[in-house]
Amino acid sequence: MTVSEGAVLLKPIGWVRTEAAHVPRNWWLSDVEGRLEIDPALAEGLRDVRPGQRLLVLFHLHQSPAFSLDRLVQKPPHRDRPMGVFSICSPIRPNPIGLSVVEVLAVNGSNLRVRGLDMIDGTPILDLKPDFRERGQTP
Amino acid sequence: MTVSEGAVLLKPIGWVRTEAAHVPRNWWLSDVEGRLEIDPALAEGLRDVRPGQRLLVLFHLHQSPAFSLDRLVQKPPHRDRPMGVFSICSPIRPNPIGLSVVEVLAVNGSNLRVRGLDMIDGTPILDLKPDFRERGQTP
Repeated sequence: MTVSEGAVLLKPIGWVRTEAAHVPRNWWLSDVEGRLEIDPALAEGLRDVRPGQRLLVLFHLHQSPAFSLDRLVQKPPHRDRPMGVFSICSPIRPNPIGLSVVEVLAVNGSNLRVRGLDMIDGTPILDLKPDFRERGQTP
Repeated sequence: MTVSEGAVLLKPIGWVRTEAAHVPRNWWLSDVEGRLEIDPALAEGLRDVRPGQRLLVLFHLHQSPAFSLDRLVQKPPHRDRPMGVFSICSPIRPNPIGLSVVEVLAVNGSNLRVRGLDMIDGTPILDLKPDFRERGQTP
């Protein structure tokens, strides 16, 4: 595969692990627990992650079908009409990146025990960010 | 360039345009206006985007220096100590993806006029998502 100009190449920083056979469609509906297994080489980057906080998780929607232009408008299961893909959380999107917010239950080295998963076992994690909603910095 | 197993290849869906010479470090400190110029081929995906709403914007931190392991802990300018990269919003991170929240001022075809930019002119946009904080769906 050749990377064209302007393309962005990302590598997983870790993987989601859960024994749940099914996960809810959205994290805000989920109390599923599991682990974020971060690459041990990156463990030091987790230094300030604490139990009880929330984390934004960016991940690869790695099992979604490829996007095609007929998916620019989709009807979400819980809505009554088709909507533009940038207004919904469909996993079928131009760039297959998902965003969830999870609660940290425990930190063990490079493994985070979390609650609120809507990702399936084996989902590649791309980034973790602090949850800006917790810091009183939202406008 | 060859893409290794598990890597994710993304293509910009559009670009940030602003005439601002400087942008704040963070979107929640910004009242900078500009445009999100989305690929016209994807315009239909913007169907339900409305003035007055907020949008999450995922973007490529395309001018950040390459990440190296000595950046796993960094001292943010506004903090008094070094912190783990996954607890801060530094643009120098294992995967150079930024997340901002902007306010939509106007929609003109595939161009969105927005306020709250912390991205520089020319920043590649990777995804737009609805702002989950607006929907009463946060836990």
